Amino acid sequence: MNNFEQKILLRSKMIDISTGYPWIIALSEPDARRYGIRAGDTLLLKWRHHSTAVSVDLTTSLVKPGQVGLFREIKRQYKIPHDELIEFKLLEHPISLKVIQKKLLDKKLTYQEIFGVIRDIVRHRIDDISIAFFVSSFFFKKPSLQEIYYLTKAMAETGYLFKFKGRVVDKHSTGGLPGNRVTPIILPIIGVFGLTMPKTSSRAVTSAAGTADTFEVLAPVYFSAKQVERLIKKHKVCLVWGSKEIAPADDRIIRVAYHLTIEPFSKMVVSIMAKKVAMGIKYLVVDIPVNPTAKVNSLREAKKIRSLFLYLARKFKIKTEVTINFAADPVGRGVGPALEARDILRVLEQKKNRPFDLERKSVKLAGRLLELSGKVKRGEGKKKAREVLKRGLAWKKMQEIIKAQGGNPNIDSEGLSQGKIVFEVKAGKRGVVNSIQNQNLVEICRLLGAPFIKKAGIYLNKSVGDRIKKGETLFTLYTVSQLRMNLAKEGLKKLKIYYIS
Amino acid sequence: MNNFEQKILLRSKMIDISTGYPWIIALSEPDARRYGIRAGDTLLLKWRHHSTAVSVDLTTSLVKPGQVGLFREIKRQYKIPHDELIEFKLLEHPISLKVIQKKLLDKKLTYQEIFGVIRDIVRHRIDDISIAFFVSSFFFKKPSLQEIYYLTKAMAETGYLFKFKGRVVDKHSTGGLPGNRVTPIILPIIGVFGLTMPKTSSRAVTSAAGTADTFEVLAPVYFSAKQVERLIKKHKVCLVWGSKEIAPADDRIIRVAYHLTIEPFSKMVVSIMAKKVAMGIKYLVVDIPVNPTAKVNSLREAKKIRSLFLYLARKFKIKTEVTINFAADPVGRGVGPALEARDILRVLEQKKNRPFDLERKSVKLAGRLLELSGKVKRGEGKKKAREVLKRGLAWKKMQEIIKAQGGNPNIDSEGLSQGKIVFEVKAGKRGVVNSIQNQNLVEICRLLGAPFIKKAGIYLNKSVGDRIKKGETLFTLYTVSQLRMNLAKEGLKKLKIYYIS
Repeated sequence: MNNFEQKILLRSKMIDISTGYPWIIALSEPDARRYGIRAGDTLLLKWRHHSTAVSVDLTTSLVKPGQVGLFREIKRQYKIPHDELIEFKLLEHPISLKVIQKKLLDKKLTYQEIFGVIRDIVRHRIDDISIAFFVSSFFFKKPSLQEIYYLTKAMAETGYLFKFKGRVVDKHSTGGLPGNRVTPIILPIIGVFGLTMPKTSSRAVTSAAGTADTFEVLAPVYFSAKQVERLIKKHKVCLVWGSKEIAPADDRIIRVAYHLTIEPFSKMVVSIMAKKVAMGIKYLVVDIPVNPTAKVNSLREAKKIRSLFLYLARKFKIKTEVTINFAADPVGRGVGPALEARDILRVLEQKKNRPFDLERKSVKLAGRLLELSGKVKRGEGKKKAREVLKRGLAWKKMQEIIKAQGGNPNIDSEGLSQGKIVFEVKAGKRGVVNSIQNQNLVEICRLLGAPFIKKAGIYLNKSVGDRIKKGETLFTLYTVSQLRMNLAKEGLKKLKIYYIS
Repeated sequence: MNNFEQKILLRSKMIDISTGYPWIIALSEPDARRYGIRAGDTLLLKWRHHSTAVSVDLTTSLVKPGQVGLFREIKRQYKIPHDELIEFKLLEHPISLKVIQKKLLDKKLTYQEIFGVIRDIVRHRIDDISIAFFVSSFFFKKPSLQEIYYLTKAMAETGYLFKFKGRVVDKHSTGGLPGNRVTPIILPIIGVFGLTMPKTSSRAVTSAAGTADTFEVLAPVYFSAKQVERLIKKHKVCLVWGSKEIAPADDRIIRVAYHLTIEPFSKMVVSIMAKKVAMGIKYLVVDIPVNPTAKVNSLREAKKIRSLFLYLARKFKIKTEVTINFAADPVGRGVGPALEARDILRVLEQKKNRPFDLERKSVKLAGRLLELSGKVKRGEGKKKAREVLKRGLAWKKMQEIIKAQGGNPNIDSEGLSQGKIVFEVKAGKRGVVNSIQNQNLVEICRLLGAPFIKKAGIYLNKSVGDRIKKGETLFTLYTVSQLRMNLAKEGLKKLKIYYIS
């Protein structure tokens, strides 16, 4: 945009520091003085055809004048070699900050304005604090339906748009119910029927594990758009985490929202539908679990979410069915990536110790999807789905998917490794398990390190309704470090999980 | 709060990087794996009686296992020596995040809750993204009067509380009008009359310079609370930037709000009044400049702000007068720290080329303050104030203040150094200056580097109403780097400052 007569040209040097996310460069103090740049300023980095905003740190010794230190995140993203000439510019306040100001003052935004903000998020032109202002001003101040549509469209269109042939189907759960990992069971069932299901799953935002976190225990989930196209062409189904190219703004927005561990409903629906639009989905089944202690905790809310899904589905011409399910308890026995993966395999392998609630729910949703897409007659979906599970065809398809994505197809549910630091919580009295507090369950899993520590989580030895004796194990904590275990035990003093009567 | 059986103990090593603000430590990758810590995680650092939250970077080479790298901000704050044993804990989600969630969902907060958030901000327990959520949820969603009172009280009480003897007076402008640097002129006038005026000024949030930025050209403004007490005891007046101990949360909140260059009115009034409460002010004159292109741009808004000031003043028992002033143009000729400082000195030294509008306004407000405090009879304030200015007593007092704060009292207005990269903007046609667009003026000053570059800014060669010939200089840009000058020139293509008819 700007044509400067003078540019800053500096030679690259690697700095062996990784920040987790923010993109940082280090300038020498003399250069900073010379150009009037301060620590914390934002510069535009240009190298070859790449261009991104970066934040400035200063140093007196780690780089010399004329050099620029690149932290590991930038190096990894662009693969810039050592001693390369890189161009920097001072960055003007991007226009999208004005748009965020406008929204903070409660004004309606146009498509152009929303697209501009989302594009700036994708291009790293605005930083996380500005994104926080956008998230809170947009989602927490009742956006209009039209603004929600604009945002969904902008999020899809600032990324890669797939065009698959045939009947492209998908299933999505709004989540918030611990366990409930039905997708990796539905996927191979659908695959057996020859439908196309390019499933993109998310990582945990407010939960102990997202489907992508869990599936990653079995096989890699990170693929480029081109690789996804190849996977689908050959196998028709896949399960990937598509954040870098598919509706890519979502990834940054989620990271920011993650700070508060809450997600407004409209934000959730937008994220989901933007990815469906990007993936070219034509038939969609959405599952909304409702539970007093889950993410969606009333029928009223569930209905609002359903109508927002259906509004966007109409706008984007996706044939959609939304089911609302009252669910009192976690689905499955494991909570946390590796424990949930074990539940999934137990169902697919049809082991005797498989969680039957997880199987029932998977079969039901797979059946709906088969019917919605017209592959199977109305009323026959569930039966057909159960059949391919029983006959081992779904497990065979799952092994094909795991292999295609680079995992080990010869894995067995009992061979999956779990955290070695273990602690069993025993019942203090006899009685009946009355209820399980899902939010506290999730919070303790997070203190144990889930979802980032795959082998961290909680196994629910007892379910709601189970009769228990004093001293019996109610649930078991798993993690990999004593520090994490102590943090969780400390948390348990305040956060009760099992209610016994 | 938590009692861990296991702590992380690491030996300090300095990392020669300065981030500008965030507090960063670097862990070795092996230690991070061992403790289950990821880049971007927050830890609680404990050393002697200090305790603060820090953000984690990772490195494979800059520190060894068992060591922790401290970036320069931490080293500067706590003066931790090399090879010191430091304790770290994993930090649970602080309770105040729950409070911010509650506010995002539009619920009223109690004093305890607000105090908790503010204390966590002060203690670095929550990060900038969370503060952004707090700022936008609290201020942009119409807080109740009671919540505003709570917040003001919490901000004052989480910092140092002064108790000065005698009549403690103060003057504050809501700002937003370029130039308008009346405080450093009023201060020595008040000082001559023997009143106590412990003035704490802010740095620029949305402007080209705050009073503290400008005064810093003449003398240091950063003092500890104890030092301020000594200054006042001896000289009765001072001008300091009191961010670290006086209502200390404000500093972090301002840094975050700064991102969007907008400041909600309630946020502004809270910041101002919290500092007045902390300083123990008893008599206060507030000046609200109103201008279509200034911060407060309508009488309606000005009245709202006035009533909020008066509400808080009643609550805290501060005798307060709020004046609303329509101001069409910048006050004074210089915009930017060093240029504004020159205007101030010209008035105090009673030079012929002094800006008379700045003098008139200073005398008027000083007069009001003298009357309000009962030092001077009603109707005589302006006359008395002008007298001490004319007789050179105010200038003498100013020299005393500059010297007391560690500046050079023998400075002369024309001796102040300005940026050496200069560019004059000429009139393209003859006519009369019709108006000056303040927001664009400020934006160009910021592109030039003000307020961080002291010698950056704009001198207004022509005022509104001046008759001009084609080719005459309208205004002059000053800065210290060609890069900045180019950025400002580029900005001028879009942002018009002078309107000529």
